[in-house]
Amino acid sequence: MSCTSASPPETDVMDRLYFEDFPPGETAEYGDYAVTAEEIMTFARAFDPQPFHLDEVAARETMAGGLIASGWHSAAIMMRINCDEVFLRSSAQGSPGLDSIDWLKPVKPGDRLSVRRTTIGARPSRSRPEIGLIEMRFELLNQDREVVLRQQGSVLFRRRPDGEAAR
Amino acid sequence: MSCTSASPPETDVMDRLYFEDFPPGETAEYGDYAVTAEEIMTFARAFDPQPFHLDEVAARETMAGGLIASGWHSAAIMMRINCDEVFLRSSAQGSPGLDSIDWLKPVKPGDRLSVRRTTIGARPSRSRPEIGLIEMRFELLNQDREVVLRQQGSVLFRRRPDGEAAR
Repeated sequence: MSCTSASPPETDVMDRLYFEDFPPGETAEYGDYAVTAEEIMTFARAFDPQPFHLDEVAARETMAGGLIASGWHSAAIMMRINCDEVFLRSSAQGSPGLDSIDWLKPVKPGDRLSVRRTTIGARPSRSRPEIGLIEMRFELLNQDREVVLRQQGSVLFRRRPDGEAAR
Repeated sequence: MSCTSASPPETDVMDRLYFEDFPPGETAEYGDYAVTAEEIMTFARAFDPQPFHLDEVAARETMAGGLIASGWHSAAIMMRINCDEVFLRSSAQGSPGLDSIDWLKPVKPGDRLSVRRTTIGARPSRSRPEIGLIEMRFELLNQDREVVLRQQGSVLFRRRPDGEAAR
C-alpha cells in the first residue's frame, strides 16, 4: 500500500480517521471507478505489454477472448479508490506488505469498480505505542457485484491523540 | 501477474520458455530499469495521489523525507521487467494470485532496478495435464543490491509440446 501519514490541507482534523475508527468486524463499501479501454491500454504499454492488455483486435485471438486489464492495473485502481475514500483523510502510516492477493475475475472496458473493506482485526503496536495495526481485507467489486480482486494485509494507523474528540 | 498465453509474432518458437525450463532451485537475474521523478509523479497522479509520491517539495515535509514511488508502482515496474525478460517469450498462462508481497525499502528517483527470480517448486496440474504450476519468488533489487520488494506465488506455464526440442 505504501501509504504513510500526511494530512492533505483541505482535511479537517475532526474528519481524520485513526486506528480507533476501524473496529474489527466492520464492513464498508465505497467508490465508483469507470474503466475505459484507453486506460487499460495505456497502463499496459507502460507496465504489462501483453497482447490481451494492449490491443482490442489482437486480444480477441488470445485465450482472454478480448481486452482485459492487467492484474497490476486492477490493484492500482483499488489503491486509487482507497486513497480517495479512506487513506487521504486518515492517519495511515503505510503497509509493510500483503498476506495474499488473488485475481478472481477479469476486469474489462466499461466495468464500474467499487471497494468493499472488511476490518479483520486490530492490535496496538508493541514497539510503538502511538501506532496500531489493522488487518484489513479489500475486495474490488464490479457492477455485477462479482469480486474481481481480493487482498488481505495489515495497514498501520496512528492512534487518536489524547484530547482529540472521537468521531 | 495476469499473464496468459500469447506468443508475440517476433518470438521464435525455439526460444519459448515452458514449464520444463524453470527447474526448482534455479535463480536468474535480469533487467535494468531507470526510475525517474517524472514517472513516479505520473503514476501517483493516476493511482496513489499522496503527497510523498506526488510532489518533490511537499514530500520533504512528510515522514518519507522526499519523493518515493508508490508501492504499486514498484510492483508494476517488476511486472514490466518480467514481461520484457521472461513472460513475453514464454508459455505463461497467468497467475491466480500471490501468497505474499512485501515492500521492504523505498524506491526513489534515480534508482536502477533489476529482478532476481528464484524457482521454489514445480508441479504438473492435476486437472489440466498440459499445464504446470511454478512457484516463484521475485525480488526487485536496486543499484545497491538491496531488495526493495519481494513477492511469492504461483505462475501457470504450458508444458513443452511433444516433439518440440528442449532448449
